Amino acid sequence: MIVVLKSNPNREQLESLISWLQEKGIIIHTSIGEAHTILGLVGDTSQLDIDLIAALDIVEDVKRVQEPYKNANRKFHPEDTVVKVGNTQIGGGSLTLMAGPCSVESEEQVVAIAKAVKASGATMLRGGAFKPRTSPYSFQGLGATGLEYLKVARQETGLPIVTELMDLSQLPLFKDVDVIQIGARNMQNFDLLKAVGHQDKPVMIKRGMSATYEEWLMSAEYVMAGGNENVILCERGIRTFESYTRNTLDLACIPVLRKLTHLPIIIDPSHATGKSWLVDPLAMGAVATGADGLLIEVHNDPAHALCDGPQSLKPEVFDQVAKKLLKLHDFMKTLEE
Amino acid sequence: MIVVLKSNPNREQLESLISWLQEKGIIIHTSIGEAHTILGLVGDTSQLDIDLIAALDIVEDVKRVQEPYKNANRKFHPEDTVVKVGNTQIGGGSLTLMAGPCSVESEEQVVAIAKAVKASGATMLRGGAFKPRTSPYSFQGLGATGLEYLKVARQETGLPIVTELMDLSQLPLFKDVDVIQIGARNMQNFDLLKAVGHQDKPVMIKRGMSATYEEWLMSAEYVMAGGNENVILCERGIRTFESYTRNTLDLACIPVLRKLTHLPIIIDPSHATGKSWLVDPLAMGAVATGADGLLIEVHNDPAHALCDGPQSLKPEVFDQVAKKLLKLHDFMKTLEE
Amino acid sequence: MIVVLKSNPNREQLESLISWLQEKGIIIHTSIGEAHTILGLVGDTSQLDIDLIAALDIVEDVKRVQEPYKNANRKFHPEDTVVKVGNTQIGGGSLTLMAGPCSVESEEQVVAIAKAVKASGATMLRGGAFKPRTSPYSFQGLGATGLEYLKVARQETGLPIVTELMDLSQLPLFKDVDVIQIGARNMQNFDLLKAVGHQDKPVMIKRGMSATYEEWLMSAEYVMAGGNENVILCERGIRTFESYTRNTLDLACIPVLRKLTHLPIIIDPSHATGKSWLVDPLAMGAVATGADGLLIEVHNDPAHALCDGPQSLKPEVFDQVAKKLLKLHDFMKTLEE
Amino acid sequence: MIVVLKSNPNREQLESLISWLQEKGIIIHTSIGEAHTILGLVGDTSQLDIDLIAALDIVEDVKRVQEPYKNANRKFHPEDTVVKVGNTQIGGGSLTLMAGPCSVESEEQVVAIAKAVKASGATMLRGGAFKPRTSPYSFQGLGATGLEYLKVARQETGLPIVTELMDLSQLPLFKDVDVIQIGARNMQNFDLLKAVGHQDKPVMIKRGMSATYEEWLMSAEYVMAGGNENVILCERGIRTFESYTRNTLDLACIPVLRKLTHLPIIIDPSHATGKSWLVDPLAMGAVATGADGLLIEVHNDPAHALCDGPQSLKPEVFDQVAKKLLKLHDFMKTLEE
Repeated sequence: MIVVLKSNPNREQLESLISWLQEKGIIIHTSIGEAHTILGLVGDTSQLDIDLIAALDIVEDVKRVQEPYKNANRKFHPEDTVVKVGNTQIGGGSLTLMAGPCSVESEEQVVAIAKAVKASGATMLRGGAFKPRTSPYSFQGLGATGLEYLKVARQETGLPIVTELMDLSQLPLFKDVDVIQIGARNMQNFDLLKAVGHQDKPVMIKRGMSATYEEWLMSAEYVMAGGNENVILCERGIRTFESYTRNTLDLACIPVLRKLTHLPIIIDPSHATGKSWLVDPLAMGAVATGADGLLIEVHNDPAHALCDGPQSLKPEVFDQVAKKLLKLHDFMKTLEE
Repeated sequence: MIVVLKSNPNREQLESLISWLQEKGIIIHTSIGEAHTILGLVGDTSQLDIDLIAALDIVEDVKRVQEPYKNANRKFHPEDTVVKVGNTQIGGGSLTLMAGPCSVESEEQVVAIAKAVKASGATMLRGGAFKPRTSPYSFQGLGATGLEYLKVARQETGLPIVTELMDLSQLPLFKDVDVIQIGARNMQNFDLLKAVGHQDKPVMIKRGMSATYEEWLMSAEYVMAGGNENVILCERGIRTFESYTRNTLDLACIPVLRKLTHLPIIIDPSHATGKSWLVDPLAMGAVATGADGLLIEVHNDPAHALCDGPQSLKPEVFDQVAKKLLKLHDFMKTLEE
Repeated sequence: MIVVLKSNPNREQLESLISWLQEKGIIIHTSIGEAHTILGLVGDTSQLDIDLIAALDIVEDVKRVQEPYKNANRKFHPEDTVVKVGNTQIGGGSLTLMAGPCSVESEEQVVAIAKAVKASGATMLRGGAFKPRTSPYSFQGLGATGLEYLKVARQETGLPIVTELMDLSQLPLFKDVDVIQIGARNMQNFDLLKAVGHQDKPVMIKRGMSATYEEWLMSAEYVMAGGNENVILCERGIRTFESYTRNTLDLACIPVLRKLTHLPIIIDPSHATGKSWLVDPLAMGAVATGADGLLIEVHNDPAHALCDGPQSLKPEVFDQVAKKLLKLHDFMKTLEE
Repeated sequence: MIVVLKSNPNREQLESLISWLQEKGIIIHTSIGEAHTILGLVGDTSQLDIDLIAALDIVEDVKRVQEPYKNANRKFHPEDTVVKVGNTQIGGGSLTLMAGPCSVESEEQVVAIAKAVKASGATMLRGGAFKPRTSPYSFQGLGATGLEYLKVARQETGLPIVTELMDLSQLPLFKDVDVIQIGARNMQNFDLLKAVGHQDKPVMIKRGMSATYEEWLMSAEYVMAGGNENVILCERGIRTFESYTRNTLDLACIPVLRKLTHLPIIIDPSHATGKSWLVDPLAMGAVATGADGLLIEVHNDPAHALCDGPQSLKPEVFDQVAKKLLKLHDFMKTLEE
């Protein structure tokens, strides 16, 4: 950590800062310039609160050199994390295909979709039982009943299920879920993150609408600090001034996160774009960029139902896309040799 | 609501859409152009889910004309909402000054600050007991104990207290709080919004880091749909690519919200900028633009404590700022005459 | 175009608007609702200035249905534009590889790089002679001399050259250049766009730092309205609040532009990310998403020169990347069959 | 400047970097930590190209401590710059009111508006002769004729004129203009900035749509490096994801720029919001925050003309607003005493 002092800092305050840092085992290198004095702090600075230091009267600026996260940091955990779920896994060179309806509507629907996507190569079933909706007047999901339907679909197909937890109070219902999803809007719901940090099942954290990589990894750190190391990161687009697509999918996150962290990375082109015809090309782009998997919305019967999100693929389209994705994933491995 | 159809829409699907709309009491005006057919929907379209219609194969685009919120909409509630708290009020021409420490540290601290800010003209005490922190290793607030200290400070000064609720599970502890604050990161924590919608005390909703006015008002709508009409909106800056300030304070929200809604509007220059020396000029700007009040961080003893946020004012500085704000507020009234 | 009127519009003004529209050959469909009256305008609305109509007292909102660009619009020009340059082409199923140094430093340098990138499969040489630099104290490029060095490199390798035009006054020097590049900061330099619209050589327009797809296409429209139909679009990242990468590369632009326009699309992962180690994965992602080509910075001797941009690849790395890109491009074709 | 080295940097490269820095008179302080070695560079680092250093293989990160601009920097020029124009001035405690039509339409129009705004208290006349328009099919301004009309209006009223220069080639026509405006889209048109840096008249630089404070000040630095010290900064909103207003007006720029630079600051609420009813409250906010002046669009006859921008005030409204602004400005001075 680097602390830039104001010119002519109050001596007493400076000494107080230095002794406080030394008590914490930090070694301090001082560079005195004409305009500024710079303190280079060496040691375990992840324990220091950057805001507290920046608040001091004598401090002009503080800049971090080390990342503020540890458990999620590849530097301290060089090997890739591979998350095992049922008889499948996320990370470790495989291509995870999570597919299913945005919202569970009925047992028949979710079972039919689960069978279809499994036949096409999906490795996990995703479906929403509790739905975060911007309007209180929109359909809020089937809730506990939706979870039951998902479990029936799992029994019929063997696909592990991933579904979103919106609030701590729902946690008891999620005992039998395979992967807990934390939605983008809850990425900084810190109480929720702490709670799932004490669960013994994988947690998939979607990136917040305007979250930086560091904030996203700090959310992973919250979960891991609680002891749960099975964290998956899911990019679903960030908000920009481009409004043609719902969000802007940031595929650069794949190689960046690969460098910063050991956690697996899933890409969700359905939510990122909000348009089903963009799912195929961006899913292909994600695989070529090195994603560990994809989260793709699939809905069975958009012709007769009004509840098909504009970004959902029909099962027959998903089938084509999934086949192409798997072929591309195999091809990419040949390039590495 | 306007529905733009693709060219040569499937006839059967079009008829199915039209009859579905008619069943809901919507009147449809059709404009057939060379390239596009446009449906003008007239009636109560706030009940229609725009995403569901946009998802139909035959639909190219859907545009709203009416706002999707009702309770928060000034069109249906022309008079300003005035929120009464203890013997003070928010809105209705007064200038609310909420002041206090970002984080409650001790009984002595919060009582001392409460007394100081009251003497300077503050009408409410704000203080954080539960703190949302991006790092799991940062101080997370005193929790229930912090709430107790706030109540002591209220008893000593008579100032009503406003403090942040982070999770549903904490709700029982907030029975005796005067105003519940929903933080920016929880603006779309819909379960929390629903829960405070059933409380009989005012709720102040901070704008999410990248929330639009409409999304913010939809969060207010969640609370109001539960029956709680005492909602206050608090702007605290939005995230932009300018990183000199922590966020970019959007003062245009004041006249815009004044037009769209009847709810009172509070401005928080402390969190918006992250720098204490920016609080004074931007607070003045907020009052001149027409804000109903300000939320300002005040901390007593930054010299000996490392826990002073860089954006906090010392009580003596707050005293000067508050006096100027009140004078300016009085002056602004003379201009209206 | 859809015009939403305020409730109870002034009758005289409404009639004035309607007769003005009718004079322009626009057919008007009127939907009268309780709260709003909606005018559906049918005909060639691209000639109407949306701001002028929105400015009228009686108008609440105006929404476009048709795109405001014509020459660049795929609807009026369904076949892909293929830009021919020397004995190579951009678009039409080929993979264009533009490579070279950000800045031309010497004849030796640019000739050496040109030879290297040609051997690796590059189809065009890019190099900057006039450099837009945010600081007046930074190296501003070799100017006219740099252009001469580029031409020598072209003679030695046969690679057509693409280089940036920064100002109208430089245009005479660009007579012998193969493709004129308009930089991101000049995307809305309308005089420059008009001028290159009268040239008989291809123009590559980089996307502005915060430009929407529509604004970008309107810039292409400026060039095409002058008669020059050989326009190439180049995505180089947009500015977001993520500062780890210099910009956020928006690969969704590829399928979106493919739908909206017939112009070829080049991706520049070097400028988008600002980090050389991100070029390989994002270039692969761009090809899999369907880009017509890539613009990649290559510099020969970063070890002994201080002028190597952090995003440049060494020639031997470019060689590996180019080979992978070409293999992937071939593979993608097999999937289409 | 602080240079963070990668762990185990190549020795030869490190020595080469150090001797290169020493040749430039930079003093280097080294802090060796477990994970990182940090170089603290002391001396005139504004001459160092941060990108060049960041590009080196051995460098992990570079962080600036000093600002990269000098002429525009308050540190080296503590007194406020006051720009004299005719018999008025910008900065130095006065309130500049620049008012006039977005676009000059006729001599009658601009003379009438000039007389009206002068009577209301305007100190300068602004009007567009060359108009940057996103569509090639929109009205592009009257050009040279428009400039002549502006000069007639100046003769009739004595108001100095400020008008936009879009391209170097128009410069000869601007000899008799009082203040040259550089538009937001040209903020980084570096050739244009260099050219106006050699003029002997004031230059007002509008902030680019997504420019940071530092980039904006670097554009001022371009002009000042050419010898022209009469630079005015004009904030006109930055692009955010909020689309209700055209842009988001950033009033925090006033105190921030006041600290960073000595140049005067003008606020343009008309372009920032795109809605005339937002001009009054935000202009008031700007004055209370400490702006040196305002740029406000005024148009004479919106009822009979279709060319009134939706953000223009009618002269009678401007009259009310101007009177309030001047009163508020006077009041603000009483607070300082």
